[in-house]
Amino acid sequence: MSEQQKSPYDLPDISGLSVSVLGGTGDQGRGLGLRLAMAGHDVVLGSRSAERAQAAADELGAHLGVRGADNARAAREGDIVIVAVPWDGHRELLASLAEPLAGKIVVDCVNPLGFDKRGPYALQVEEGSAAQQAEAVLPDSRVVAAFHHVSSVLLLDPAVDEVELDVLVLGDDRDATDTVRALASRISGMRGIYGGRLRNAHQVEALTANVIAVNRRYKAHAGLRVTDV
Amino acid sequence: MSEQQKSPYDLPDISGLSVSVLGGTGDQGRGLGLRLAMAGHDVVLGSRSAERAQAAADELGAHLGVRGADNARAAREGDIVIVAVPWDGHRELLASLAEPLAGKIVVDCVNPLGFDKRGPYALQVEEGSAAQQAEAVLPDSRVVAAFHHVSSVLLLDPAVDEVELDVLVLGDDRDATDTVRALASRISGMRGIYGGRLRNAHQVEALTANVIAVNRRYKAHAGLRVTDV
Repeated sequence: MSEQQKSPYDLPDISGLSVSVLGGTGDQGRGLGLRLAMAGHDVVLGSRSAERAQAAADELGAHLGVRGADNARAAREGDIVIVAVPWDGHRELLASLAEPLAGKIVVDCVNPLGFDKRGPYALQVEEGSAAQQAEAVLPDSRVVAAFHHVSSVLLLDPAVDEVELDVLVLGDDRDATDTVRALASRISGMRGIYGGRLRNAHQVEALTANVIAVNRRYKAHAGLRVTDV
Repeated sequence: MSEQQKSPYDLPDISGLSVSVLGGTGDQGRGLGLRLAMAGHDVVLGSRSAERAQAAADELGAHLGVRGADNARAAREGDIVIVAVPWDGHRELLASLAEPLAGKIVVDCVNPLGFDKRGPYALQVEEGSAAQQAEAVLPDSRVVAAFHHVSSVLLLDPAVDEVELDVLVLGDDRDATDTVRALASRISGMRGIYGGRLRNAHQVEALTANVIAVNRRYKAHAGLRVTDV
């Protein structure tokens, strides 16, 4: 079948790919690293400090074999590299890693949000979104946006067997978004759903403010499911 | 119980409230009018032309008792007024109806989108969002944002008994958002979920571009469900 004819539901086999998580010591990074290691992937948690990264990796459980490394080494070692760093410093970190990230699929899950006494709100980003900023500073990488609305509480809760939500996967490179859809679908309960081009990433990132509002009102760990797909 | 203590799941009884739909001859307006009439509400479809509005109302089926009127009369007659007009002309229409809409709950479901050869994208709105623009030109109304991601195809399909999706309801007035949550929940299969303050409406409106991308890729009529609530 040609590229045009293949089913939008088809997923490539990515079980052999390794995954690095930049900002891997934060809740989101540890949570994604944990679940992807549970799914059988070779996972490296990256951090500014290799020691702190190794401590976070050890905390996930020695049986998973997750390793810690500084961000540059993590960037170099992963077949797929997830960016889960704080928004503050996002551009500088990625720009500094352009060389090791060249040619790789870089999955940005950063949500540029501010907080004030009325709660969370979306920040304006010069490039349009965190994902587009990543694309701007990583011209030789294949940038995909995904994993924005995934509760780290659920990811890190050993009592949660199935993370019951869908991940919107955005990007302009069909093979790259298919790979990241497959990556999301490796986590039990989760599906990766194509969610549009990278120029439509801002609202997906910003929607995290709404998800937080839902969580506060309903005392929940909300996620999204896409119906009819 | 005090306002603070009531459950976020409680819904007021709004079965006696009438609903008008501005822009009621469009697919979204007719679809919402149809489903709310099926739920037992007295519904008026508004349009620039009272004749076209009446024709659209008649088309929904005489047994439902939906009436057509010009937008000004529709604005006057509804207890709740849904705004389902095209983005182009949104501000002018609402500004012209500030007097009849004063004191009412106004439910904005307008999505400011552009389209080019790469598909849909979110338009920038000076006030932040269509809903905030409505709030700006309707200072005496209670503006709520809702019904952004509801497929008119599903609403208008007589074979669809249950419209299986959640409606994010945004606003700064707790009673008004509770009323609109109840309104969404009157449609079989649908739930109204509080989704944050009006300042976080832009991304919910803009996310319609992503829903359209999902629909195109998967040949679906996608909606969203909020998990864990």
